[in-house]
Amino acid sequence: MALTHINQQGDASMVDVTNKAVTSRTAIAEGYIYMQPDTLKLVEQHGMQKGDVIAVARIAGIQAAKKCADLIPLCHPLALSKVQLDFELQPENSRVRIQSLCKLAGQTGVEMEALTAVSVAALTLFDMCKAADKSMRIDGIRVLSKQGGKSGDWSADG
Amino acid sequence: MALTHINQQGDASMVDVTNKAVTSRTAIAEGYIYMQPDTLKLVEQHGMQKGDVIAVARIAGIQAAKKCADLIPLCHPLALSKVQLDFELQPENSRVRIQSLCKLAGQTGVEMEALTAVSVAALTLFDMCKAADKSMRIDGIRVLSKQGGKSGDWSADG
Amino acid sequence: MALTHINQQGDASMVDVTNKAVTSRTAIAEGYIYMQPDTLKLVEQHGMQKGDVIAVARIAGIQAAKKCADLIPLCHPLALSKVQLDFELQPENSRVRIQSLCKLAGQTGVEMEALTAVSVAALTLFDMCKAADKSMRIDGIRVLSKQGGKSGDWSADG
Amino acid sequence: MALTHINQQGDASMVDVTNKAVTSRTAIAEGYIYMQPDTLKLVEQHGMQKGDVIAVARIAGIQAAKKCADLIPLCHPLALSKVQLDFELQPENSRVRIQSLCKLAGQTGVEMEALTAVSVAALTLFDMCKAADKSMRIDGIRVLSKQGGKSGDWSADG
Amino acid sequence: MALTHINQQGDASMVDVTNKAVTSRTAIAEGYIYMQPDTLKLVEQHGMQKGDVIAVARIAGIQAAKKCADLIPLCHPLALSKVQLDFELQPENSRVRIQSLCKLAGQTGVEMEALTAVSVAALTLFDMCKAADKSMRIDGIRVLSKQGGKSGDWSADG
Amino acid sequence: MALTHINQQGDASMVDVTNKAVTSRTAIAEGYIYMQPDTLKLVEQHGMQKGDVIAVARIAGIQAAKKCADLIPLCHPLALSKVQLDFELQPENSRVRIQSLCKLAGQTGVEMEALTAVSVAALTLFDMCKAADKSMRIDGIRVLSKQGGKSGDWSADG
Repeated sequence: MALTHINQQGDASMVDVTNKAVTSRTAIAEGYIYMQPDTLKLVEQHGMQKGDVIAVARIAGIQAAKKCADLIPLCHPLALSKVQLDFELQPENSRVRIQSLCKLAGQTGVEMEALTAVSVAALTLFDMCKAADKSMRIDGIRVLSKQGGKSGDWSADG
Repeated sequence: MALTHINQQGDASMVDVTNKAVTSRTAIAEGYIYMQPDTLKLVEQHGMQKGDVIAVARIAGIQAAKKCADLIPLCHPLALSKVQLDFELQPENSRVRIQSLCKLAGQTGVEMEALTAVSVAALTLFDMCKAADKSMRIDGIRVLSKQGGKSGDWSADG
Repeated sequence: MALTHINQQGDASMVDVTNKAVTSRTAIAEGYIYMQPDTLKLVEQHGMQKGDVIAVARIAGIQAAKKCADLIPLCHPLALSKVQLDFELQPENSRVRIQSLCKLAGQTGVEMEALTAVSVAALTLFDMCKAADKSMRIDGIRVLSKQGGKSGDWSADG
Repeated sequence: MALTHINQQGDASMVDVTNKAVTSRTAIAEGYIYMQPDTLKLVEQHGMQKGDVIAVARIAGIQAAKKCADLIPLCHPLALSKVQLDFELQPENSRVRIQSLCKLAGQTGVEMEALTAVSVAALTLFDMCKAADKSMRIDGIRVLSKQGGKSGDWSADG
Repeated sequence: MALTHINQQGDASMVDVTNKAVTSRTAIAEGYIYMQPDTLKLVEQHGMQKGDVIAVARIAGIQAAKKCADLIPLCHPLALSKVQLDFELQPENSRVRIQSLCKLAGQTGVEMEALTAVSVAALTLFDMCKAADKSMRIDGIRVLSKQGGKSGDWSADG
Repeated sequence: MALTHINQQGDASMVDVTNKAVTSRTAIAEGYIYMQPDTLKLVEQHGMQKGDVIAVARIAGIQAAKKCADLIPLCHPLALSKVQLDFELQPENSRVRIQSLCKLAGQTGVEMEALTAVSVAALTLFDMCKAADKSMRIDGIRVLSKQGGKSGDWSADG
């Protein structure tokens, strides 16, 4: 087992995918932002009924998926063919759940794009709520599943 | 209590800081990426002794702090005066701890920059290790402390 | 009378503002997008009552204001202190009116930022409505007023 | 009829083009900037005979076409295969006409790229002339024609 | 012989590659940064044994290759499939040699990406060493070889 | 003597300038691109008399100066107050000389911005001439002089 982006001398590079097959690839990621119950009520009030809160976070996440190769040094530039973000307010856990789905017909997987979308959507919620609540916490960012490519399909446990 | 970025009609805007005082501001944030013990050993081997792994994540975090206003729609553009990232491998918890510090002489706080630096550094570690371990998890991203500005100093509990 | 960005040899440059006073500056711009009445009803339905249409255009406009110096070659980079966009559906004219307000404490005016915000918000509405209506038209983008700076206050006629 | 970028819950997403055919696509867009006759003479003098005015606007428009997916949140990233801008000074109407042509072998149309090129070229002319004339107006930005893709060829009336 | 990016009227455009074949393309470029022997020792000390100097320059070069179409106005956007940078300290000439390799399956060559990677890596070394040595010089940036595409393979003399 | 961007552990950071004085700073840099005499004639023909060649390179250089902190990882973001590029065709040496001047009222020097402007202008000339001449060489990029700041004024020898 080895790190694919680091050669035997310890040098980083953007790995060669020139000869990988172009296949349809999908990745789904999730993450959470925990906040105080009163803060979550503000999000619910402004984001669900009439306001822009969730919409702002959604757009930020979509835009961030497209910026992934600019943010993560060894990521390949990709022409994503679909990005979708879904938000669920979970007051029983005092948190918002964020899920992203990215698709591509290309030579590399899109899990980094999906993870970046979730991360930046969570950061954007943090930004809009931070005047009310400085103790929020972003948690549980992970890949749920990926499809396509040589390494085949994969799903997270649990 | 209300969301400062959303007005009474539910519309988002970049809030007015034109008349806020220019003061020295600092924010410290942290976050974690959990991975399998064998993956952590690869990071240790390539990042601590000879390789680029930690360096790549560090640079990605510093660059991301500077891109914060481009990523988070309602953040003000800022001219950061210092960005520093520190990494600690914690094999007893099978994780890497990432801490960032951002500074500015300006009109708004820099906690979003610090949180963005930690998030993107964690995503970059994920990217470099994902061929070895798809089940990694980014966790516990939060503000540890902030100083300066009208709202005064603040530290997280615990 | 001469073009300030072009010298006597016809060469472009970013003009020197090093010694200009830092003052509070504001600019307001407007623009319109005309569409078929049925298209405007779709925007009204999705943007006013429950959906993201106007929110997406608003965020795009705010982000574009921050990118102004990256888009317009001879613009100075600015640290905007406020950006606000307002949208008004005007079915009597079969159009959406977009107004932006930008503020800065700085050395140059912010009318280009305000105009860029309106332009990109209009383009974003175009993008979301183009499957329904290819014949939309963006019109009447202009500065309404500006305040601050050596050249003083200015308002458009009519 | 519905807005393709907004689902039944009113949520925005980048629509799925994974399975659309890769075909050759072209779009042509146009727009105008109106200015006072004396301002137009300055442009003519500096842009036609020896100077950089038109060249700066042309480059800004080409660069903006490439930034389209970064500016317009729900646009797909595209690898444009051709961008061309043409300018015509029309003193009889006291305006500059701007026309753009974008091409792509890809899965989505390129009309937003063509419209963005025209818009940013017009904004760039505005920027260079604004010291002489604050009352300029950008007008008539629209798609003239598009070719390729499932929805077939289309031309604007009149 | 003519300049392909400039038409007979002298106007710049992004040339049409829509109908060019998609082939595998590679380019290798090199460049040098000369510095005082004591400065080079600092690089050697911090970059070779334990530190980040070379790693920072390497990452900057990889990221710059991906930004090429944003930096060079008439370059086509490309989805690079591999980027690699190598550094060699050459104390006998008091310089660092930088070599880059870029690959792509696409319609245009990648020599500009390779040259941009070398240039920005050299600038990054300059930045980190400039407090010690203001008289450094970046020299000898050129294409060493290119493969693929209609114009065939090419290598620099000497 | 030590590298200011690398601490004793070899870790990179963006150094703290929070408490440095805001002073007026200027930097001038130069560089050269060598080409075959016939290629230089093409540049002369298209760039001096009627065409866009020099204008495109000039705009690319100005834009690159503004992107410096995005390209060079440890550079501070700066609000440049002036950027100017000058080009001189030197057929006696079969080369184009490029000179840039950057200014800022700020806390750090602007030599990296000036060097970046020269480098990207040279790369842009390379791009436009490469169909005619693959063996061009970018050479002699260096700082000519800098003014302002704690370290005082400095000029290159010779």
